[in-house]
Amino acid sequence: MSEIPSRTVFFVSDGTGITAETLGHSLLAQFGNTHFHQVRIPFIDTIDKARACARQIRDTAQQIAHRPIVFSTLVKPGTIDALREAADCALFLDLFECFIGPLEGELGQPSTHTVGRFHDIAESHDYQNRIEAINFAMSHDDGISKASDLVEADVILVGVSRSGKTPTSLYLAMQFGVKAANYPLIPEDFERNKLPGELNDHRDKLFGLSIAPERLSQIRQERRPNSPYASLTNCRYEIEAAQKLMRRENIRWFDSTTKSIEEISATIMQTVRIVQKY
Amino acid sequence: MSEIPSRTVFFVSDGTGITAETLGHSLLAQFGNTHFHQVRIPFIDTIDKARACARQIRDTAQQIAHRPIVFSTLVKPGTIDALREAADCALFLDLFECFIGPLEGELGQPSTHTVGRFHDIAESHDYQNRIEAINFAMSHDDGISKASDLVEADVILVGVSRSGKTPTSLYLAMQFGVKAANYPLIPEDFERNKLPGELNDHRDKLFGLSIAPERLSQIRQERRPNSPYASLTNCRYEIEAAQKLMRRENIRWFDSTTKSIEEISATIMQTVRIVQKY
Repeated sequence: MSEIPSRTVFFVSDGTGITAETLGHSLLAQFGNTHFHQVRIPFIDTIDKARACARQIRDTAQQIAHRPIVFSTLVKPGTIDALREAADCALFLDLFECFIGPLEGELGQPSTHTVGRFHDIAESHDYQNRIEAINFAMSHDDGISKASDLVEADVILVGVSRSGKTPTSLYLAMQFGVKAANYPLIPEDFERNKLPGELNDHRDKLFGLSIAPERLSQIRQERRPNSPYASLTNCRYEIEAAQKLMRRENIRWFDSTTKSIEEISATIMQTVRIVQKY
Repeated sequence: MSEIPSRTVFFVSDGTGITAETLGHSLLAQFGNTHFHQVRIPFIDTIDKARACARQIRDTAQQIAHRPIVFSTLVKPGTIDALREAADCALFLDLFECFIGPLEGELGQPSTHTVGRFHDIAESHDYQNRIEAINFAMSHDDGISKASDLVEADVILVGVSRSGKTPTSLYLAMQFGVKAANYPLIPEDFERNKLPGELNDHRDKLFGLSIAPERLSQIRQERRPNSPYASLTNCRYEIEAAQKLMRRENIRWFDSTTKSIEEISATIMQTVRIVQKY
């Protein structure tokens, strides 16, 4: 059978499960030929709950062809031992064992997980920066910035409509606390063959996104089927004009066609050399 | 000296560095009493680059009080060995050793990192879902939804202005591919003591956010200093009225005052029991 094989993955945590899950997402994305059925089991903070969780893993293992994979961030010895009652029927990947333990030793302090209360991340400076950056991205999306606000921006993305500027701006904010504004390049700009005037004072912050006309047309078709806006001819015209403009104006840009927002953002961070906010 | 101790952390990757960094963020957030100076070193895909990277780590180690911490996602034996030339002067945390290796064995397939090309995440169904969910959150923010669009929403957040609805909606989209609309609860709703009419058909999707009036007033002061909108008296009135309305209408809600968007989102995912999109 040429069906994609399937695996059940459990994220077991004594907190929200976000740590286990974030890591799990990144790792599982490295394995393209498997479908992962993912089960989040947060707030496992007692031995009884850990034991129930072990039973659930065991039951699942009996019903499926391949043994499940378990990402665990449990830190209390009692709960870990209880969860390990299912160790013989799953692949256990243990964040504590691999990382939190060694980090505790190195830093000479217990992790906030270990001490049993959630770290007050919401009060931290880094967190406030991220939220501020998200609000900034929201209120400086799609060219709605006041020129005076652009002083605050860390980076300003430019590109034709639907080239990926908005999701990238939001990812930069959420992941890195970076303030990104974005400006569409529109037919008017191409006719004038000039950037929107507000951008002139901020050339060092500009970064362009381009995209293959075929892919752009496909994305626009989903939004406005059979419109001139979405037509391949128009997309070809806009992309060519935008690239010409960016070259003329000496703006760094790259092609986002087959790139994820993670990859686009990493490249921007490296190119624009933004001082990270955390 | 009571200064917060500082550590330099390197994220060394043969790709974007996002995997190493995402994990690193989660882990380092567990250690509140240390300031982490974080250095991303992506695209280390040759032995020469890995050797230069080892030199940089060694140089840094000689200049600072505590040895650096290195998160590595390198997978080629040659580059790993070259990086390990700095192993005696840093704490090495190796993702490949801990996770990718065991997963490769378990799944019987090499990771896309190992095979030396970036997994085409941008083409994947999960990725498209996340982007679609981000677009959905952007175009259904702050009550701008058409009633007919709400059928598509996985969850609809309600709460007074600045209670955290927008960043939470975006996080749900970006992390989980969940489509979240949000509606502000405004003085008009309180006078009528009724929810906005569009929401009546979607009660099973509603989730309320509340917040301490003191914190709300502080957040609003930053936006509109000394306004009636930001005054503590008004914030107290709005919060009390919103909670009364949510109780009357039987809406699940919780207090987000000291919660991060990660924690709020995990709780929503568990409460609303959204079928995850990946």
